[in-house]
Amino acid sequence: MINKDLTETCRAVIDKITPVREPLRQKAQEKIDSKTKPQGSLGTIENLAIQMSMIQASLEPKANIKALYVFAGDHGIVKEGVSAYPSEVTGQMVANFLAGGAAINVLCRHHDIGIHIVDMGVDTDFENHPHLLKKKVRRGTRNFAREEAMTAEEVMIAVKNGMDVFFDDYSTRKMDIVGLGEMGIGNTTSASAIISAVTGITPEQATGRGTGLDDDGLKKKSKVIENVIDFHNPNPKNGFEILRKIGGYEIAGITGAALAAASKGVAVVLDGVISTAAGLVAYLINQDIQGYLISGHKSVEVAQEAAVSYMGLKPVIDLKMRLGEGTGAAITMSIVDSACRVMREMASFDDAGVSKKDAGENCS
Amino acid sequence: MINKDLTETCRAVIDKITPVREPLRQKAQEKIDSKTKPQGSLGTIENLAIQMSMIQASLEPKANIKALYVFAGDHGIVKEGVSAYPSEVTGQMVANFLAGGAAINVLCRHHDIGIHIVDMGVDTDFENHPHLLKKKVRRGTRNFAREEAMTAEEVMIAVKNGMDVFFDDYSTRKMDIVGLGEMGIGNTTSASAIISAVTGITPEQATGRGTGLDDDGLKKKSKVIENVIDFHNPNPKNGFEILRKIGGYEIAGITGAALAAASKGVAVVLDGVISTAAGLVAYLINQDIQGYLISGHKSVEVAQEAAVSYMGLKPVIDLKMRLGEGTGAAITMSIVDSACRVMREMASFDDAGVSKKDAGENCS
Repeated sequence: MINKDLTETCRAVIDKITPVREPLRQKAQEKIDSKTKPQGSLGTIENLAIQMSMIQASLEPKANIKALYVFAGDHGIVKEGVSAYPSEVTGQMVANFLAGGAAINVLCRHHDIGIHIVDMGVDTDFENHPHLLKKKVRRGTRNFAREEAMTAEEVMIAVKNGMDVFFDDYSTRKMDIVGLGEMGIGNTTSASAIISAVTGITPEQATGRGTGLDDDGLKKKSKVIENVIDFHNPNPKNGFEILRKIGGYEIAGITGAALAAASKGVAVVLDGVISTAAGLVAYLINQDIQGYLISGHKSVEVAQEAAVSYMGLKPVIDLKMRLGEGTGAAITMSIVDSACRVMREMASFDDAGVSKKDAGENCS
Repeated sequence: MINKDLTETCRAVIDKITPVREPLRQKAQEKIDSKTKPQGSLGTIENLAIQMSMIQASLEPKANIKALYVFAGDHGIVKEGVSAYPSEVTGQMVANFLAGGAAINVLCRHHDIGIHIVDMGVDTDFENHPHLLKKKVRRGTRNFAREEAMTAEEVMIAVKNGMDVFFDDYSTRKMDIVGLGEMGIGNTTSASAIISAVTGITPEQATGRGTGLDDDGLKKKSKVIENVIDFHNPNPKNGFEILRKIGGYEIAGITGAALAAASKGVAVVLDGVISTAAGLVAYLINQDIQGYLISGHKSVEVAQEAAVSYMGLKPVIDLKMRLGEGTGAAITMSIVDSACRVMREMASFDDAGVSKKDAGENCS
């Protein structure tokens, strides 16, 4: 039995999401076209500038204040031998995040992104730490090869906890943009299963090597995902059911944070295959989130592409990364910042007294 | 008759370039593999960290101090109607750079890159300005559809001026990395001709829309390039001859700056098709420059790909940009900085007490 207040609280946030401001598109396009450059010559940078204008309902978009959350959780499915690393690594990596030694710490320091680590369901107990948000639902999901990953109530608690992570931070510093990363040994299996279930790509197509499986491991993982989809037969349109049957606590947390950010008109940068799967669940829950989502990077994990396409997004960068944590998102948040600055700071042809295309006698 | 001292000065710089330190490759690889992440999972970031280690002969590579030069010049070939913009725009854009209103200014401010504008051959006279380096060889090249673009002596002066731009800056602040951009109405024609001549791709394959030609303009430009190659028949291995016959002053300046940077062991980030064509000329002059070169981004201009492949490079990002100025290089310099920080700051498995792959009992 799900707590009714909990469901209503989540529902209120979800219902608060409105589509990004379509009328801003043309004004933003005109503004970027007035800048001293050939039209369209900044490519993706221009698209990002326009998207941020639409998200913020402003022709002076900003990505100055940046936050990134690393949601962590363990996965019962690891018992099926789907990962090259043992489950303990999730907790060890959380400690590494808190000590500032992981890739995502380095990137967040470099790009001035405030980072928080969220324990959504790690099978380790942690001491208090200023950057650790304790939102543990349970010490790891159930093994979804045998039973549902979580209860319906746990789904709601996890989504609500993810929302709270965003809202608590937002209440103190009104971020312009957030990145959503994760850590959880076994979670590419959950993400691939989710993406297969929603987009209809086969389990084999959806399965990647995760942290580094060999060919035999890959085959085994693909078979596990195939069995899991057969066993649960999740409704491809029902985000909550998908989380319950084959999700993860950190994935549900990301879904919640994405929904919360969109409800406040804040841009959301997704990361690799897991973060994108969580974004996909948020998209199932309310498609109006679409315009707030930015696909941070193209992951080496193949399933990510299907999820990104399903939502009508395009990854900003392709650095052949497959680490997760939010690393691709962090780099892209800096590029989005550049795009906003281009929109705010570049001179127009009129401002700069630069001749426009085809305006001069030399141009026969 | 070329000034002998000038040639000898350039030659001394060229001969000082030594290949990047190959023995560092394995040590850098081992260091990056010891970091708390699955091996190879940071993709291009890891490659950049290793390359920077080899360039700097250090396992603690840095890209902290960054400089970018925008070399500007006009082109006689514009008389053939190869550009969508008139020649005056080159000078107007130089003024825009100096006023801080162009895309490259915005990006350099954002990424803390010191910017200098270099007048190599603009058909405009400029007032003095703290960020303007006056290195004008001539007010625009000759129309290389009819005669050679410059004299042999002008080639050497331009290359030497480009070298001086780097050396003067380096003497005051020892940059870790430089980006090389350009401005010059008509210069995609020169760049495409150079790349066609060197790599053997056809003029048609090498011709792009530049700042925004329509289909007829594109056809005309391709025909001009075909005629130019037939007329001059430049030796595809001789960088100086190529500059003389079909080059530009700003292109020769970039070539010089790239050679100078490599001679001091400084990483060079190339930008779009023009910057890459200039890098290609530097590569013809001394192939040992190869390991110092980073291809900043994949340009929409198709010829760039042939040049990048010829040098054995791979563009770091693909943001569908075609502006030049150094805009793609500027964004990539920030990514290279991230890569260096990953190498310096990330914890190793041992430091962080994180279990390695296949080390635990859960990983069957």
